[in-house]
Amino acid sequence: MKKLMKEKTNFVADMLKGIEIMDDAVEIISENVVVRKNLKTKGVALVSGGGSGHEPAHAGYVAGGMLDAAVCGEVFTSPTPDKILEAIKHVATDEGVLLIVKNYAGDVMNFEMAQEMAEMEGISCESIVVRDDISIENIEDRRGVAGTVLVHKYAGFLSDNGFNLADIKSRTETFIEKIRTIGMAIYPCLVPTTGQYGFDLKENQMEIGIGIHGERGIYQEDIEPIDEIIKRLMHELEKEISDKTLIVMINGMGATPDSELAIVSHYFNEYAKENELNIEKYLIGNYMTALDMQGFSITLVPYDDEYRDAFDAPTESKYFV
Amino acid sequence: MKKLMKEKTNFVADMLKGIEIMDDAVEIISENVVVRKNLKTKGVALVSGGGSGHEPAHAGYVAGGMLDAAVCGEVFTSPTPDKILEAIKHVATDEGVLLIVKNYAGDVMNFEMAQEMAEMEGISCESIVVRDDISIENIEDRRGVAGTVLVHKYAGFLSDNGFNLADIKSRTETFIEKIRTIGMAIYPCLVPTTGQYGFDLKENQMEIGIGIHGERGIYQEDIEPIDEIIKRLMHELEKEISDKTLIVMINGMGATPDSELAIVSHYFNEYAKENELNIEKYLIGNYMTALDMQGFSITLVPYDDEYRDAFDAPTESKYFV
Repeated sequence: MKKLMKEKTNFVADMLKGIEIMDDAVEIISENVVVRKNLKTKGVALVSGGGSGHEPAHAGYVAGGMLDAAVCGEVFTSPTPDKILEAIKHVATDEGVLLIVKNYAGDVMNFEMAQEMAEMEGISCESIVVRDDISIENIEDRRGVAGTVLVHKYAGFLSDNGFNLADIKSRTETFIEKIRTIGMAIYPCLVPTTGQYGFDLKENQMEIGIGIHGERGIYQEDIEPIDEIIKRLMHELEKEISDKTLIVMINGMGATPDSELAIVSHYFNEYAKENELNIEKYLIGNYMTALDMQGFSITLVPYDDEYRDAFDAPTESKYFV
Repeated sequence: MKKLMKEKTNFVADMLKGIEIMDDAVEIISENVVVRKNLKTKGVALVSGGGSGHEPAHAGYVAGGMLDAAVCGEVFTSPTPDKILEAIKHVATDEGVLLIVKNYAGDVMNFEMAQEMAEMEGISCESIVVRDDISIENIEDRRGVAGTVLVHKYAGFLSDNGFNLADIKSRTETFIEKIRTIGMAIYPCLVPTTGQYGFDLKENQMEIGIGIHGERGIYQEDIEPIDEIIKRLMHELEKEISDKTLIVMINGMGATPDSELAIVSHYFNEYAKENELNIEKYLIGNYMTALDMQGFSITLVPYDDEYRDAFDAPTESKYFV
């Protein structure tokens, strides 16, 4: 296996030490726990996290205007409840803490345990679960993917604007119900802990409906020109979202070069014009990745003035631009 | 060949249309020519460019505080003199234009022709040639690589601070003489126009001293832990730079995931501590890439207060952070 690393067992610990060098605004208070140096003293504190391998998610969003802490488990592995609790206690304000959790069994269970432990220590704590990946049919089982970053940003905006814990929970839950994502890959990711690719893909094939942990998609198909791929993905998304005025996130999967992400964006925009979609805002970049997977996802959000204001609001994160 | 694209012949044209969607601050005034929407009216204008495939270089640095225009040739192919001239004429101020050119025969020749044509039209025009890649022994033949982005930033800072054309040329040339870069790759880039990889690399090998156009490096070696790789690269760099106080750029080659770039940064920093190097500033990210190559380069700059001020100065580019 070829990776720029020292030992696979230290992959995440070494990465976090590097993040501390790359980002002056954060510090690692103990293994797996990344917090803002400049802690919030008022407003609801926001904690997210999950397995690592999705960088810049989630540590890159620990910044003014977004998260107050991220708990970074091993690669594709949930962080433990004690680490989540440590993050909660470190950043909690009198106004409480909101946990933003992606819908994976391990994450949901461990964040829930940490929440209970925090409540027992007298901290007001609520949680929300993101499930934006439409490649799973049953809504309850849907995974949290790129849309999670939009939830971080929206919650950060609400917190900065003085909303209380109950209001932020209720508004972000309404938001979560509306957002939809689907992804695809042309090359799978190589997982450092196992030395194996997430899935096998023939030299001429692509995978539609991939997850962000190297999970297989819904089906494989021969590689097509990008405009055809976008039609495929939009065909799935439009089964669920009929709104014509939208905010759109086009997310690179980690090893997709900027040139190709730009080409995807151009053809998405052509699709939008042909289909009379009105795109009020684009967010394009590597927001939620799967190690070195090559591919992208599209996230649609029905347009709302408040959502645009939230995404336009300042943040100190250099990864949400 | 698997790429997120429509037709390989339109790779760059489609990419530029996408960049216009991704970046509100720029516009494409004709094929291959990217300029700031909000043009400078005073101060020396800065034009760079070269072949495409190095995104975000150079279009991503067309922004307040950095470049005024970028001329983007086909993938790994110099732009033509008429396109460079078009860029020069569009952004020229009364104070003149500086061309920032990477040291490749085609780029140097075409920028020189454009410069002569601009001068014939009465525009004050100077050029500088960046040659920071130490993997070529003869200094005159050295290629311009990641250090070019630092030249953009420094020149932009000088222009914003009112230096005249002759001064900016002279100061940036002194700067160019001081900076040194070396790169390595674990996976080569797949070139869309040919459908071929830049070079072949055995499953267990890495390439040391790579260029940014899929050029082979100086030698191949079995993959090693990252701390050993950093020692190898620093061994080469320290033959040329003996300063102990430095500014350091760690640059991803396009498909290097953030997790691994963070690990590289951590082990670079460990190396610096062990060797009593004082790193006054880090710049870490994907600044100058080679399509979907996986690897990184290290650029060293002997410390100088003015250089740090230049790199810390504001820019509207979302890619220089």
